[in-house]
Amino acid sequence: MENISPENISGFVVGEGCFYVEFGGDKKYKLGYRVRPAFCIEVRHDDRDILEVVRSHLECGNIYELDFGRYKGYERKKWTPHVKYRVSNFDDINKKVVPFFKRYPLFGKKKLSFERFCNIVNMMEQKAHLNNEGLKRIVLEVNELRALNKKGI
Amino acid sequence: MENISPENISGFVVGEGCFYVEFGGDKKYKLGYRVRPAFCIEVRHDDRDILEVVRSHLECGNIYELDFGRYKGYERKKWTPHVKYRVSNFDDINKKVVPFFKRYPLFGKKKLSFERFCNIVNMMEQKAHLNNEGLKRIVLEVNELRALNKKGI
Repeated sequence: MENISPENISGFVVGEGCFYVEFGGDKKYKLGYRVRPAFCIEVRHDDRDILEVVRSHLECGNIYELDFGRYKGYERKKWTPHVKYRVSNFDDINKKVVPFFKRYPLFGKKKLSFERFCNIVNMMEQKAHLNNEGLKRIVLEVNELRALNKKGI
Repeated sequence: MENISPENISGFVVGEGCFYVEFGGDKKYKLGYRVRPAFCIEVRHDDRDILEVVRSHLECGNIYELDFGRYKGYERKKWTPHVKYRVSNFDDINKKVVPFFKRYPLFGKKKLSFERFCNIVNMMEQKAHLNNEGLKRIVLEVNELRALNKKGI
């Protein structure tokens, strides 16, 4: 196993990690919307070991081989297979991911994304997403987070 | 100034840094070739602060605004301006950059690139690049380093 410290991980996540919120219409939910904060890191297949270490530090999440969608048939397209580490269980996000990156702080723009992300997680912990007024406040934060996460080329 | 630790930096460099060697014909040199090990990190313009902190830790190198070549006229192309931190002075590489990342180790594939890079720097410190036989050994290492650094999509 690679020797990777928690501070190494926060530095790595500044470059490669993403804090985001899946938000969309879903009739299974009382207000008609699903809100799911998630954290992921995507790397090339040959750096999968890094993700295994991150998972062992964060004690949650799963690692997926990305051989579908835009990666399907990657050999023909000269693409490299990727792997993704992802946490979306709310308790894991709230009690493991968020505290980890508060203890081992991020920096740069990623720090701003993380602050917005924490706001959303806090609101959800207080059940704001279960009433219309709270859901509206969450949507505003989600839009701000999306703008921050938007990638330039 | 951002609060970024040395271990944060090595984690960040695993994602965003590059150890490479500029190698090419140049008649100014006795054997007709120039060999120049270099280290760089390129980020979006709005994360320039990170590079300033890296420079202050490594105590060498320069930061460049990339508004030329493929970045020229980036606004029209919906590109985001980038900035690059770069060290190419041999003494800085040998006495500052290499010792830093030996003290605060890298991981994943970047660690392998760094090991090749160190081999080349060591050979150059012993003046191997000034004789034909040594230059050939360096070229073999440079090719291995390039193969490791080659980006997939």
